Amino acid sequence: MSEKWITGVDLGGTTIKLAFINLNGEIVEKWEIATDNSDMGKNITTDIAKAIEDKLADLKQDKSKLVGIGMGAPGPVDYETGVILNVVNLGWEDNFPLQAQLQEVISLPVAIENDANCAALGEMWNGAGKGAKDLVCVTLGTGVGGGVIANGNIVQGINGAAGEIGHITSIPVGGAPCNCGKTGCLETIASATGIVRIAGKQLAEGQATGELAEIFAKNGKVTAKDVFDAARIGDETAKKVMDEVSFHLGFALANIGNTLNPQKIVLGGGVSRAGDILINAVKENFAKYAFSAVRDSTEISVATLGNDAGVIGAAWLIKNKLNL
Amino acid sequence: MSEKWITGVDLGGTTIKLAFINLNGEIVEKWEIATDNSDMGKNITTDIAKAIEDKLADLKQDKSKLVGIGMGAPGPVDYETGVILNVVNLGWEDNFPLQAQLQEVISLPVAIENDANCAALGEMWNGAGKGAKDLVCVTLGTGVGGGVIANGNIVQGINGAAGEIGHITSIPVGGAPCNCGKTGCLETIASATGIVRIAGKQLAEGQATGELAEIFAKNGKVTAKDVFDAARIGDETAKKVMDEVSFHLGFALANIGNTLNPQKIVLGGGVSRAGDILINAVKENFAKYAFSAVRDSTEISVATLGNDAGVIGAAWLIKNKLNL
Repeated sequence: MSEKWITGVDLGGTTIKLAFINLNGEIVEKWEIATDNSDMGKNITTDIAKAIEDKLADLKQDKSKLVGIGMGAPGPVDYETGVILNVVNLGWEDNFPLQAQLQEVISLPVAIENDANCAALGEMWNGAGKGAKDLVCVTLGTGVGGGVIANGNIVQGINGAAGEIGHITSIPVGGAPCNCGKTGCLETIASATGIVRIAGKQLAEGQATGELAEIFAKNGKVTAKDVFDAARIGDETAKKVMDEVSFHLGFALANIGNTLNPQKIVLGGGVSRAGDILINAVKENFAKYAFSAVRDSTEISVATLGNDAGVIGAAWLIKNKLNL
Repeated sequence: MSEKWITGVDLGGTTIKLAFINLNGEIVEKWEIATDNSDMGKNITTDIAKAIEDKLADLKQDKSKLVGIGMGAPGPVDYETGVILNVVNLGWEDNFPLQAQLQEVISLPVAIENDANCAALGEMWNGAGKGAKDLVCVTLGTGVGGGVIANGNIVQGINGAAGEIGHITSIPVGGAPCNCGKTGCLETIASATGIVRIAGKQLAEGQATGELAEIFAKNGKVTAKDVFDAARIGDETAKKVMDEVSFHLGFALANIGNTLNPQKIVLGGGVSRAGDILINAVKENFAKYAFSAVRDSTEISVATLGNDAGVIGAAWLIKNKLNL
């Protein structure tokens, strides 16, 4: 029998990533289309269906090659019904029946999950968490997102809010305001935005000298990457920023470990690309605050799938749903 | 067909609690025997088998009335193999094959799980968490224990250390030493021992006046119950102790909520019997530090099964294993 494919879709506010993925979790073909969120997003499902059909034609493949479509969506999802509860950037009204609509236009099984959860499933299927049944993925990007997998399945929580690792409170009193309405969330510290904020605060005091202070004097700002680069060459200000970030991140991960003792905690997103300068310090703090049996067994690793984690995890949803 | 029973067993270092439980999770008969941990614990399994057979005879029931035996053990358990990894008080050596041994002497299906996890399963089956698929139970006793249930099943973790809620680090620097080797664990604050310690520290300063200071002057010590009683009548020292305990407990539970968004967080154990004076303050802190979607959906409640949670949850293991 010839190899079957799953279509994995990672739906974002500006682009939609698509991929054909084989049953081993490997990408055969990937491409993107623009998200058309005009007219309350009414073209999105038909655009996706057309993109899939066009690509099959390009590759001279029949639709029977596909067993189904898995999709990650940027908001809370009711997995059982495939309804998007609410989503900001796509034009859809609340409780949008995405799964039913897409199934209708494409006549294939569809499964939908939150995009952070899809990234976690991708890393479990074919990435840094390969083979792990208990896994926590933390995406350190503009914000901080997360996905929790226990006994091989996503933990969604009663209101779809499990895995909101970015909104773990790190600073109970006097923390920076978070977009979520609280203050002191991990996201205000361990995201790219948080790192820039902490560095800016230190540099604005005007006492700092060194590499990072020079960039700040020249550009009036620094990026998260500037902080990592400066820390790597021993810049004192940058090292102080990294100490603060890695303390709070390591502390939060240790307490997640004390609660769940996952086989792996996988760190992804742009900030995780800081590499050893961040990861080693996070591991040190983790070891300090984790219960001994957790410290000895839960491993912290860096995600390996990059931006592909979402489409691969989305494809896993169909593999799991159809018992393939 | 006449009603079938499961035997639930809660194995402790000094007593073994046993119960016959029907398939609705209700206790039909319960009793205790002493734990004989002499001779490296070699009599424990035969004692349990004899206790069950004697009780069946007392009740004029045949062994065919029983479908199996579920047991909670005071240590980490490999659920798949029914092996107790290590346990301090029972005389057994490490990796003791409890399930296999008990099955051999009693010729009935046996399932074994850690006792804190059994208590969580009991509350899920027929207690404060009835019907919840996502549940976290926290037992506030001499120490602080926990059990995490996700998608209807216990989360064990890669090393059996999931649910170590008591060893969540609450105070990163300068916290009290914990039995686990770390400092500042939640157990050093929110257990009966922790409450007595915090109160003693405040009272030893010798500045305090009021009810609690009088008890301390008279007895040279106070109990956790003394603290609750004094707080209830407005004693300032006791209120300060309760503020500290409820802050750290509410903060830790909020971050568990931000990670798992369970339907319920169930508080059990002696300390939970403090009632509203503790629970309301914990709920306030939880609301302050939980992500909005978690605050609006995760409920904090008090356990309803008391000391029976362990045998009821142990019985659930068999119901689940045999798909009854």
